Amino acid sequence: MRDLEDFNDTNLQPGLSVDCVLFGFDNNELKILLLKLKSIEKWALPGGFVNVDKDVNAEAHAVLKNRIGLENVFLKQFYLFGNLERNLNTHTPELIKNGIISTKRIAFFKQRFITVGYYALVEYSKVKETTVDFISEACEWHSIHNLPKMIIDHKEIILKAHQTLKKELNTEPIGLNLLPKQFTMPELQALYETVLEKKLDRRNFSRKMLNYNILKDTNKRRMGVKHKAPILYEFDMENYNQAIKNGFNSIW
Amino acid sequence: MRDLEDFNDTNLQPGLSVDCVLFGFDNNELKILLLKLKSIEKWALPGGFVNVDKDVNAEAHAVLKNRIGLENVFLKQFYLFGNLERNLNTHTPELIKNGIISTKRIAFFKQRFITVGYYALVEYSKVKETTVDFISEACEWHSIHNLPKMIIDHKEIILKAHQTLKKELNTEPIGLNLLPKQFTMPELQALYETVLEKKLDRRNFSRKMLNYNILKDTNKRRMGVKHKAPILYEFDMENYNQAIKNGFNSIW
Repeated sequence: MRDLEDFNDTNLQPGLSVDCVLFGFDNNELKILLLKLKSIEKWALPGGFVNVDKDVNAEAHAVLKNRIGLENVFLKQFYLFGNLERNLNTHTPELIKNGIISTKRIAFFKQRFITVGYYALVEYSKVKETTVDFISEACEWHSIHNLPKMIIDHKEIILKAHQTLKKELNTEPIGLNLLPKQFTMPELQALYETVLEKKLDRRNFSRKMLNYNILKDTNKRRMGVKHKAPILYEFDMENYNQAIKNGFNSIW
Repeated sequence: MRDLEDFNDTNLQPGLSVDCVLFGFDNNELKILLLKLKSIEKWALPGGFVNVDKDVNAEAHAVLKNRIGLENVFLKQFYLFGNLERNLNTHTPELIKNGIISTKRIAFFKQRFITVGYYALVEYSKVKETTVDFISEACEWHSIHNLPKMIIDHKEIILKAHQTLKKELNTEPIGLNLLPKQFTMPELQALYETVLEKKLDRRNFSRKMLNYNILKDTNKRRMGVKHKAPILYEFDMENYNQAIKNGFNSIW
């Protein structure tokens, strides 16, 4: 959402919004970036409206830039949330009552809304401190297992994004943006275990991962750990991007 | 789209449509069901608008029922097409000129439109003869490799649906609705080869497919073929549905 002064609802695609689920990985926890709205005790995904003269996907990027100052994120569209029910739980009346939405804009906000869901994997440290827009008062990471009270169907949108991410782990690599540039095999495995919410066998994981050919041995080792110092890896970007594009798991 | 008399654009979600890519399998060809529009020399996916009081997914089903008389299809939402560019190629001016769209409805049709893409795998023979609605003059299957001239971005929507289907073959079974109830392993393999557009190794295919545990040996054989008569299989519906739900290829 642009600044209040820029907000011209005649220029917006009626009844359409975009919402972004940003996944971060911190301390072996999967976290989601949320905005606390002013004047109501609920949190929201970074989302916004779509200019009638702009591509919907481009507007999802614009929302991240305008609302939380985040650029160059690899956003993936994953679902259109179009149930009528989502409009029953709207927080619009509260926003109107509290003067956050001007009375001139009530008609726009009272429309039936559908929203396009996007997700992205982002570097936790990169968005630790972000700018906050005029309708929010805080921007914070929350553990996916301990989400605060959220507006409309935003909790459901997060769960669907997580489901999609889990499914995509079978066909595509992840790790880029979620791990530091150099990482050990146990660190990569911990990321997978966190996203998949299950323990994996150490040998199997390592064997499969090395077979996919997306890791480069840096010839360095993580120091300061007990026992044998583990190898530090980096992603081989060419092979990684190839695997993202074609899937590393073409079983047929 | 309902009958012309029912068409009340004040009751429709502005600027939103749904379009359905129906895949059929006939004679070792992947085919798509298309409607020929009246008065213009272009074909279209079965699509329509969304009532402001209805769930978007439910309206995709309603469109298939109302436009081509097709019910109980397993529709999968796969992408929202929201590029601005798609509106540059609209056929609306032609429809207006030819009197297919009444002048009362011009404002509705001239909006910027986005469309939600769905796909389904349907039994070829079931939709051989379908009813046709008031804006179409024919409903026919076309080979995906020989599509006629199509409206707006409908060709692109079909290609994206095909891409999605190919990708999903790595995690989910297909065959139900595309093959007769009983089928041989070579027939199942021919379906996979057609969808994937590549030849597969016979032994590997058979071994993997049997491992997935979704086939039931019927203890019958296909007669009237040369050499050894091949076994007839059916899908084990419980395991098949399980695999659709959880994916049969959880590699981690």
